[in-house]
Amino acid sequence: MQVYLNGEFLDQKKAAVSVADRGFVFGDGVYEVTRVVNGKFFQEKEHLDRLDEGLRGLKIKLRSEIRDSIPNISRELIQRNGHAEGEATVYLQVTRGAAFPRTHTFPEPEVPATVYLSSGPFKPHKELHEKGVDVITVPDVRWTRCNLKTVNLLPNTLARQQAKEAGVNSAVMIRDGVVTESPNANIFAVKDGTLYTFPASNYILNGITRKVIIDIAKSLDIPLVTEPVRQDDLYELDELFFTGTTTDVQPIVRVDGREIGNGTPGRIVKSIQQEYNSRLYG
Amino acid sequence: MQVYLNGEFLDQKKAAVSVADRGFVFGDGVYEVTRVVNGKFFQEKEHLDRLDEGLRGLKIKLRSEIRDSIPNISRELIQRNGHAEGEATVYLQVTRGAAFPRTHTFPEPEVPATVYLSSGPFKPHKELHEKGVDVITVPDVRWTRCNLKTVNLLPNTLARQQAKEAGVNSAVMIRDGVVTESPNANIFAVKDGTLYTFPASNYILNGITRKVIIDIAKSLDIPLVTEPVRQDDLYELDELFFTGTTTDVQPIVRVDGREIGNGTPGRIVKSIQQEYNSRLYG
Repeated sequence: MQVYLNGEFLDQKKAAVSVADRGFVFGDGVYEVTRVVNGKFFQEKEHLDRLDEGLRGLKIKLRSEIRDSIPNISRELIQRNGHAEGEATVYLQVTRGAAFPRTHTFPEPEVPATVYLSSGPFKPHKELHEKGVDVITVPDVRWTRCNLKTVNLLPNTLARQQAKEAGVNSAVMIRDGVVTESPNANIFAVKDGTLYTFPASNYILNGITRKVIIDIAKSLDIPLVTEPVRQDDLYELDELFFTGTTTDVQPIVRVDGREIGNGTPGRIVKSIQQEYNSRLYG
Repeated sequence: MQVYLNGEFLDQKKAAVSVADRGFVFGDGVYEVTRVVNGKFFQEKEHLDRLDEGLRGLKIKLRSEIRDSIPNISRELIQRNGHAEGEATVYLQVTRGAAFPRTHTFPEPEVPATVYLSSGPFKPHKELHEKGVDVITVPDVRWTRCNLKTVNLLPNTLARQQAKEAGVNSAVMIRDGVVTESPNANIFAVKDGTLYTFPASNYILNGITRKVIIDIAKSLDIPLVTEPVRQDDLYELDELFFTGTTTDVQPIVRVDGREIGNGTPGRIVKSIQQEYNSRLYG
């Protein structure tokens, strides 16, 4: 498997960054994961726009010719890895670069940003999409700039691991008594035919898939309210589901062992899945 | 300059970790910084105990023979770098290791932890200790497991950078209306002869230097209350100071442009500095 690192394509096993890279010592970087279907990048512009937003948020400067070459690099990468046919994902990470000795403040003089891309084959979680998943609730212990897609991902990894050890698929995170998102996906709820999701703010990542779902809701005439769902109301919901780049639209049928709705994927999530699939694969 | 990485000493410029290292893609690791004075490691056991605590907190498994060899590795490193005389610091970082492809959950099968050490010459901030520093207040946007000394340090680096751009030395972080700590030091306040500091909890790092200062306060018969200082009371304090491994005991004389006390280091911080220096250098 080949990856791209700072101007060259090389074997993944040989790809290495300096121990002084601020990605390694501070988690000082942002990332994106994009779905690729038969060589076609889904929502590519939106991912690149969010990358720019993240870089601005962290004040990481990426030379414009490198930024502009990311689509071409991504295409060459999937070609080299045989991921231009069928389904794949492309992972892209940009850090503030390497500077020694380590200082909290940004390096002076500036150093070039580190740019890393990898690609992998992808198999959609078809069975989970059909049957739905079990989750647990966990406290949302993340920082309060969750709108930035950074590699400071410890709380996310720990929550996923906690879910795995609890024998469930993922977690629903709770901050101040309301549902925010999952460690790696946004969350939508359905009550009495209306869709609810946490408002775009510093408390959630404004997912690319989330935006597609909001657009789909409009096109299907499903009323949408961007308001948080209270933890106390979780078990009274009719439907609940995750949305994300690799999660797609994934019904949640059980939370903390209690059924949501009748414990099977509901009518609204199914209609959204259908429309989402036609946009992703159409 | 040499560093230690996963079993070998090598030139810092050649030391590199895999792009799949979870330190790089998730910030999934912990670190320690230890002061060294003429080859003597200050509070070494305490730093290693906290390392163990951090590893347990993140469930990172470090082979016991490697863990036990850290003191020897540290000593060989400062010898090789000529840091065994005069003042130096040793930086130690342990991550969960490298696993490809990237998954939020812990690697299966387990992979060896990445162990990285570097050393550098250190010059105490003597002038700042004598004159005191200016700071700004910034919101404490960190996650709520600040007791773990992890490399998820983006909020810390951004706050330091913000302070630098504001033309001051550092920042005092405010969460829910109270002072927590600085991006890289604990904070003590003095009012009417009593010392105040945020209680050891998940909202601050329980600093090694913080514990030394608490011990010093006892030995000097200075009353200590482990209660948070309210932001509203900041400007009415008699004294305010940072404590940390590389910060030592550093008076804060101005916050957001307003003087603390009479704008010069106070009586109590000076007595604590004196005792701290005798312990560090004695």
